[in-house]
Amino acid sequence: MISQEDILHAFHFRHACKAFDPARRISDSDFGLILEAARLSPSSFGYEPWRIVVIQNAALRERLLPVTWGAQKQLPSASHYVALLARRDGLTTDGEYVQHMLRDVLQFPPERIALRSKTYQKFLEHDFHLLDSERALFDWACRQSYIALANMMTVAAMLGVDSCPVEGFEQEAAETVLADAGIMVRQHWGLAVMAGFGYRVQSPAAKIRRSAEEVVQWVE
Amino acid sequence: MISQEDILHAFHFRHACKAFDPARRISDSDFGLILEAARLSPSSFGYEPWRIVVIQNAALRERLLPVTWGAQKQLPSASHYVALLARRDGLTTDGEYVQHMLRDVLQFPPERIALRSKTYQKFLEHDFHLLDSERALFDWACRQSYIALANMMTVAAMLGVDSCPVEGFEQEAAETVLADAGIMVRQHWGLAVMAGFGYRVQSPAAKIRRSAEEVVQWVE
Repeated sequence: MISQEDILHAFHFRHACKAFDPARRISDSDFGLILEAARLSPSSFGYEPWRIVVIQNAALRERLLPVTWGAQKQLPSASHYVALLARRDGLTTDGEYVQHMLRDVLQFPPERIALRSKTYQKFLEHDFHLLDSERALFDWACRQSYIALANMMTVAAMLGVDSCPVEGFEQEAAETVLADAGIMVRQHWGLAVMAGFGYRVQSPAAKIRRSAEEVVQWVE
Repeated sequence: MISQEDILHAFHFRHACKAFDPARRISDSDFGLILEAARLSPSSFGYEPWRIVVIQNAALRERLLPVTWGAQKQLPSASHYVALLARRDGLTTDGEYVQHMLRDVLQFPPERIALRSKTYQKFLEHDFHLLDSERALFDWACRQSYIALANMMTVAAMLGVDSCPVEGFEQEAAETVLADAGIMVRQHWGLAVMAGFGYRVQSPAAKIRRSAEEVVQWVE
């Protein structure tokens, strides 16, 4: 159990860190825990439709720079820089990726796979209309990957590590850079979001949010 | 600063809790912190395109039951049950919601709004192709709301509170229930995801995840 005070402190500590101290490196055990929080994150149907690429290679970071306007300072200075990939294909009921999860990871017996497939097909087709386009299914995989993203940032803050989520990139161009580097095949994976991790060099601006009254509605 | 051990424990404690103890209620201060973690969550451009509806009304929970196959046990037993709404319209550059955020919440001066609008328009149109369809923009708002969802579940686990994320609902039908109850206008908001919170009645199954080797790739 963790105290309310410590948790709240972490949420106020976290901010979109614009530049990191290039001289400071996150310890292996701290960054290992940040990755573990992502790995243990929940996902719809337990399909974990994500991959985490930790980009430490300076040349690759440089190639991302021209297509990542939102991380001009973070890309060169981050202790660790992450690309979160989301699954683009193989997510249909009989899809290669889903079948891999059911058989090899979740290790469902055939009768449970059959039952799950029925539920999942209804979910995809009827409940969420995810078969309307390839993009709809990819966006759904992206949603899941944001759970992992959130947990990485929150755990970082709890360890006193700063982070910056990065959506400021040209998706196709950035995917091309990653594909050309042999990191992903665009048919199978897309780039959902990126994030830098490290230590701040300056104090953040005051945190601004809508009031609780505007965000939360109680129906009693 | 929170210890690595306490953080890791929370990630192992959290599981998709299938049924809650109907006799146990989360304290106001614990649930208040869960909501505060959602409110302080980051979002793209700081637009917080979400709303949190805490559904404590038994009649409303009952009306959701027939369209929420994924929470048959959770809906009646949860101490607190949440619907996370994502913004459906008003997210374009000149959109009502975005303009409200820029003027009233972020309180940008006119010249900064002009600058931001230019960046945002390029992001929507060119970087992420979010103007291709209304659905693309809604799905992008949903992604952001999953950051708030993740933080709620993680903070809950840190407080010893169980949770269950719920995507098992018929989106249109569930939105109709919420709209008919006067909670949201479907033109403006959609139902992104739901979640129940409470206390477990039985031990969870062992946690299964892909191995770190399959999930994480280091590029050094």
